[in-house]
Amino acid sequence: MKLVIAGAVAAGMSTASKLKRLDPSINITVYEKGKDVSYGACGMPYYVSGEIEDDQSLVARTAEEFRKKGIVLHLKHEVTYIDPLNKEIMVHGLENDTKFSAIYDKLLIATGANAIRLPIEGSELSGIHTLGTLEDGRGLHSILRDDSVQKVAVIGAGYIGVEISESLRKLGKEVVLVEQEPHVLPKFSPLIAEVVEDNLRENGVTIHLEERLEKYGGDSHVEKLYTDQGIYDVDLVIEAIGVKPATKFLDKSGIKRLNNGAVKVNDKLETNIKDIYAAGDCAAYPHKLTGKLAYIPLGTHANKAGRIIAERLSGMDSHFHGVIGSSVLKAFELEIARTGLTLSEAEAFNSDTVSIRALDRAGYYPGATPVDILVIYDVETCKILGVEMVGEQGVAHRINVAASAISSGLTAHEVSQLDLAYAPPFSPVWDPLQTACNQIKCRK
Amino acid sequence: MKLVIAGAVAAGMSTASKLKRLDPSINITVYEKGKDVSYGACGMPYYVSGEIEDDQSLVARTAEEFRKKGIVLHLKHEVTYIDPLNKEIMVHGLENDTKFSAIYDKLLIATGANAIRLPIEGSELSGIHTLGTLEDGRGLHSILRDDSVQKVAVIGAGYIGVEISESLRKLGKEVVLVEQEPHVLPKFSPLIAEVVEDNLRENGVTIHLEERLEKYGGDSHVEKLYTDQGIYDVDLVIEAIGVKPATKFLDKSGIKRLNNGAVKVNDKLETNIKDIYAAGDCAAYPHKLTGKLAYIPLGTHANKAGRIIAERLSGMDSHFHGVIGSSVLKAFELEIARTGLTLSEAEAFNSDTVSIRALDRAGYYPGATPVDILVIYDVETCKILGVEMVGEQGVAHRINVAASAISSGLTAHEVSQLDLAYAPPFSPVWDPLQTACNQIKCRK
Repeated sequence: MKLVIAGAVAAGMSTASKLKRLDPSINITVYEKGKDVSYGACGMPYYVSGEIEDDQSLVARTAEEFRKKGIVLHLKHEVTYIDPLNKEIMVHGLENDTKFSAIYDKLLIATGANAIRLPIEGSELSGIHTLGTLEDGRGLHSILRDDSVQKVAVIGAGYIGVEISESLRKLGKEVVLVEQEPHVLPKFSPLIAEVVEDNLRENGVTIHLEERLEKYGGDSHVEKLYTDQGIYDVDLVIEAIGVKPATKFLDKSGIKRLNNGAVKVNDKLETNIKDIYAAGDCAAYPHKLTGKLAYIPLGTHANKAGRIIAERLSGMDSHFHGVIGSSVLKAFELEIARTGLTLSEAEAFNSDTVSIRALDRAGYYPGATPVDILVIYDVETCKILGVEMVGEQGVAHRINVAASAISSGLTAHEVSQLDLAYAPPFSPVWDPLQTACNQIKCRK
Repeated sequence: MKLVIAGAVAAGMSTASKLKRLDPSINITVYEKGKDVSYGACGMPYYVSGEIEDDQSLVARTAEEFRKKGIVLHLKHEVTYIDPLNKEIMVHGLENDTKFSAIYDKLLIATGANAIRLPIEGSELSGIHTLGTLEDGRGLHSILRDDSVQKVAVIGAGYIGVEISESLRKLGKEVVLVEQEPHVLPKFSPLIAEVVEDNLRENGVTIHLEERLEKYGGDSHVEKLYTDQGIYDVDLVIEAIGVKPATKFLDKSGIKRLNNGAVKVNDKLETNIKDIYAAGDCAAYPHKLTGKLAYIPLGTHANKAGRIIAERLSGMDSHFHGVIGSSVLKAFELEIARTGLTLSEAEAFNSDTVSIRALDRAGYYPGATPVDILVIYDVETCKILGVEMVGEQGVAHRINVAASAISSGLTAHEVSQLDLAYAPPFSPVWDPLQTACNQIKCRK
């Protein structure tokens, strides 16, 4: 059996290495467009800031290590076309500009996603960066050590935009964060986002909300930012407005995709075409709460999906249990996390919310800090639909209690009655999540 | 309606204050043997050490605050007898040695538990303390500020014994911790306990395991400890060998109890006698996993049970969802936590274990520390039965993801497929709990 994998980062290489362990007899060939494999993209903001010193420490395993395990790995080779009828792919060797075809028995599409560039005037100027690949990370790391780069504009205040703003401040740069929505982190409720905004400002980030970038100015290097509200001098720009699945090469393959290009898969990570799987940032997974396909490109899903594909290809009847929208980020002192539906996703349900501010530990224990929690629940079933949290301590793990509860379909009352571990250095006797759930009158 | 409550700490006062909010018309009278109300007993080790400066900060609400809300509160009044037939109690006013009776419509037994004293020679000597009540805490706090007290023996290495050992070291005392079992924290597996033992020793605690205390020596003050293995000079002793429900006064009441004296209650917190409830450290609650009654005296249960009783007395059909054995403690740098069944409790099931050591965050992120995890699972159903963890970071909340999963009856595979929030500063891309569950081959 020959498995061909297009893409050698999280989903591709976790499939390859797990499958090689489960069944060494399977022939695995991986084609990767770039020159880096199996790196932790989520760590790049900390490499850019210098908190992580070496770009190689982001690499979980090197190409050489994979090859030693018997995996055939071609770097700088892009899969350009898939012919499902003949189970054949076209490959473009980027270094020597070679083109050749290869056959597969099973194919995994794990080509990831590309950072979206704004299609505006001046976007061809130098000094406009994104942070999608490790190569991007190295470029930013290098240029930001240049003292002539002082004024940096970050376009888009999603996860990457907020994280890189922290990195930039740690490097002593002036940071202007521009977001066209009314708040940073648009997936969060305004309640939580405002706490983050206050913290960003306290840490010296200038935030421009409800402001739309119109064009860049400069001769060959970007020098000015023109928005619908002003003109700003900049030395460097980082666009962080989102990603787009790298699936253009599937246009004629017959493989079904969402409008944004994400490959549709079922709970077996199968596409609509036999023997073709997809996983990672190029795929849209079943959402456990909505029952629909959701595009939530995160490393956790890539790793879980990769493992499931490997298990299935080795003969096990494993299933991917779906996504529910859990995520967390660090921004300066704050931990900011969510799980389940967003406020706007919850509009499809008969839902309501409660919110509280509580202390993260016993009030009498030194160092207690506030945690803000928003709980979205179904007023008919009383089930928790979503939880958002922000605070200085305990948020990143506390959100996962909510994630487990939401996955299991627990009601607010069931959450407030969970037997959670308690000691004064770690939480109040009622955990803040339970205090929030205690506010919910819906009782089932 | 007249509710009488015996005991004014966690269970008693959370019932009283919640019920007063739900239905101000209910007449609530509380009798408390001691002089303190509604205090956080779990915080006492940190008051003894001086980390919490004021004993009053452990008090959630004062007697005066409760009285202002219309709750009748008699301190230094002990309930000595219950006559369920006539719905009458006998009360002993301890200050003026008065005795009187009072009637009730509903009665809540919330008398807590007393620290067990060792019935050995010399136990009447001065200088032998326990840490059960706030009064005990104040006594220890005071005497430990006496510089002549240098050598302190702690008898029993359960939660309190380990916590108070840390307090004593913070005060610069020499600490000998004596435990008759082969390991500290006997509810934990040896794997986890040994990590704790190493840490205690690194922090200067002398540990004597498998050593039994036989008698105390001294004229009027304790001066020597005689064990089955040696004789030790001591200036002070703290006995921390467990607690016994304070329910002796129920001997003739007809109220059913476990052998240790804990009052048996159902999921409505009802005893076997109509209109009599029990909650807090004097009660044994239904265990969600074993289906049997379990004596696990913790503040979390007292607060949850108190709330449920208040809701029921106000007419709501609330139920206590049972205990599963979750707990956590801090010992120096370590967070030590467990949930679900212990190894010995799991023997009643067809169970097996896996254990791993993983990093608490992405390996490349600064400050990553190891976490040891033991997972106990049912080999037939693949359900998680119990989880133990120890580490420097993230253990106290991570255990609650396991607690939620166990409460919901999740299998190992379901836990490893949970959509948990991830970012490099907080966890590896596979949370350590999931990495442990990935080791479990049982697949359902």
